[in-house]
Amino acid sequence: MRVDVALVHYPVVNRHGDTIGSAVTNLDLHDIARAGKTYGAGTYWVITPFAEQRELAAQIVGHWTRGYGGSVNPDRGDALALVTVCASYAEVLAGATEKFGERPLVLATCAKEQANTLGYAEVRGRIRRGTPVLLLFGTAWGLSPELLATVDGVLPPLRGATGFNHLAVRSAAAIILDRLLGEHDDELM
Amino acid sequence: MRVDVALVHYPVVNRHGDTIGSAVTNLDLHDIARAGKTYGAGTYWVITPFAEQRELAAQIVGHWTRGYGGSVNPDRGDALALVTVCASYAEVLAGATEKFGERPLVLATCAKEQANTLGYAEVRGRIRRGTPVLLLFGTAWGLSPELLATVDGVLPPLRGATGFNHLAVRSAAAIILDRLLGEHDDELM
Repeated sequence: MRVDVALVHYPVVNRHGDTIGSAVTNLDLHDIARAGKTYGAGTYWVITPFAEQRELAAQIVGHWTRGYGGSVNPDRGDALALVTVCASYAEVLAGATEKFGERPLVLATCAKEQANTLGYAEVRGRIRRGTPVLLLFGTAWGLSPELLATVDGVLPPLRGATGFNHLAVRSAAAIILDRLLGEHDDELM
Repeated sequence: MRVDVALVHYPVVNRHGDTIGSAVTNLDLHDIARAGKTYGAGTYWVITPFAEQRELAAQIVGHWTRGYGGSVNPDRGDALALVTVCASYAEVLAGATEKFGERPLVLATCAKEQANTLGYAEVRGRIRRGTPVLLLFGTAWGLSPELLATVDGVLPPLRGATGFNHLAVRSAAAIILDRLLGEHDDELM
């Protein structure tokens, strides 16, 4: 089981569809690290081109992995130890490829249906058969179209029986890790 | 499909197992409301015995449902409109029973295995057959044993192929709503 997660702060789009760089948030670091650790993800890559934001992310992680936070809550340190902060998606892809010893299958996540969809059961099967996978999650209003155009596939949008589909990226990441890597009491996937 | 969600700030336990009342957080309101709205939950009950905390929660919700927040981001207002703030679990159970016209099946969630477990497929089936369900989520280190002892059943802990199990309550709620109410591309549940 070789699955990495990447949280993209650039390039993503804002509500108007313009490509922007979003801000790193403390909660995205914590919640996705905790979900990644629970479901057995390898590395949680956090991507931002802004040096000060990378420094902020590193300070938050360090508080839990080396500083006071981890001494009172070691589980949180174990989760945040998954984080590696990078300046670009290219850097992450190179790092993941080196780590896995081969280029991973790069899968984007998107709240809107995309052309090159790969279903959850299919991806779950590939992961079980040993394919390394890199999952990309977009902050703000989602991954930019230019980045989406470069990936190997896109997971279907998450949805219930409603037309509403506005999950926090933290929630979407947790659900998708559960769908791909979770142990379900009724082994149906 | 009649499913309500309740976020319990009292009675919950701290890391030492003492029963405490935890603090309302902005992100738990937003993320669980967004997941609830996406998956078709009816009411998102927020329980705290502290009047000032109820006032805070109501102010946050009002900013999005009636104030400036909703005018720039109406989807967020639609999600937060699910929130009803209450002082106690008893009040929520009475409110949900009145709304549903019958007492709902009350299911707790817990990171540890409990005796009276009800599996996801079983609960998913009951929901589809029309049983009203009230899902209880605990903040801090989880629901107190006294509260757990009163429920009709407990959903199995979420887990991947690791021994680690420290999800944020926001993440656990999103995953459980997806397991119980999500539309999966491969209809296997």
